[in-house]
Amino acid sequence: MSTTSIPGYTYGTSEVATSPLTLQDLELLKQTVLFGTEDQQYLRTAGEVLADQIEDVLDVWYGFVASHPHLLYYFTDGKGNVNSDYLAAVRKRFGQWILDTCNRPYDQQWLNYQQEIGLRHERAKKNKTDGVGSVPIIDYRYIAALIYPITATMKPFLAKKGHSAEEVEKMHQAWFKAVVLSVVLWSLPYVKEGDF
Amino acid sequence: MSTTSIPGYTYGTSEVATSPLTLQDLELLKQTVLFGTEDQQYLRTAGEVLADQIEDVLDVWYGFVASHPHLLYYFTDGKGNVNSDYLAAVRKRFGQWILDTCNRPYDQQWLNYQQEIGLRHERAKKNKTDGVGSVPIIDYRYIAALIYPITATMKPFLAKKGHSAEEVEKMHQAWFKAVVLSVVLWSLPYVKEGDF
Repeated sequence: MSTTSIPGYTYGTSEVATSPLTLQDLELLKQTVLFGTEDQQYLRTAGEVLADQIEDVLDVWYGFVASHPHLLYYFTDGKGNVNSDYLAAVRKRFGQWILDTCNRPYDQQWLNYQQEIGLRHERAKKNKTDGVGSVPIIDYRYIAALIYPITATMKPFLAKKGHSAEEVEKMHQAWFKAVVLSVVLWSLPYVKEGDF
Repeated sequence: MSTTSIPGYTYGTSEVATSPLTLQDLELLKQTVLFGTEDQQYLRTAGEVLADQIEDVLDVWYGFVASHPHLLYYFTDGKGNVNSDYLAAVRKRFGQWILDTCNRPYDQQWLNYQQEIGLRHERAKKNKTDGVGSVPIIDYRYIAALIYPITATMKPFLAKKGHSAEEVEKMHQAWFKAVVLSVVLWSLPYVKEGDF
């Protein structure tokens, strides 16, 4: 996958934040969402299934955001003006996130990048990557709530390449676990000191 | 449902915290998890299906917690001693939570009780309801991560009363949405001022 063409996508570079969490912390979180080696394998398969459908998935997700003013708000200046360049820049990284979630090993580098993503949603780093003057934070409540649509809308795409119902279900469950895991990690910058 | 016999279950009373959120906030969250009137109806059906299976569901959930020391930890004194009275007291309210999630209208009273539940997990009110000397907080990360097992383990129970696969799936999706909604609301006391 070509990633050098995505502005602001800094995975694995020295620009990425360092997660305060360890691989042991991650292991316990994986146990809590029942994420095992079989899930890793099904995510790899999902990565193959989704590779040429990323734009279609993003069309669904962006359509959802665009049709809900309380979500589209986070891409505005707070006065009703949507920044379409910002939407487009985030879209590329969002697509890459789908592939990374399926294909990357969940190691310290991955953990660090989840911290980076969290910071970019919270006020610590929002708008900075793209140099935009949008509202200062994506409120926590919607990041967590998006677990549902980001999970549920994926299933039809996983079913589009002729896998059995059982295989689709296993890919989907692995995706669900990975989304919960990701959102938990993105939440870290939002949570009070000592409460995470 | 008889609730007067559950110590610490204060739903609808003046002892319950007041949520800082409004019904309009709740409406936007419901939109974000795609929760509609059909989901409400399927939750009512789920409530009927689950009514005589609550102890079986709790056996699965408590078995999961008991088999993971990093989760069981939150019912200990922090020195490895599990408080079984505390586990038992929470269990009754946890069972009632399943029924309330299915049967209660999601109104201001419900919103307030989600705030109360959040406070009882965070350091603000943990241990106080049961007057126990357990560790001071259930860390945010596991409350959010439990979205997966609390959702996934419910499906077989929803399928046990002869409903069609489609009805079971609709009950399960409604349950998934309700769990995400609940966990978002429980997170409020954990999130930094202004970030929720």
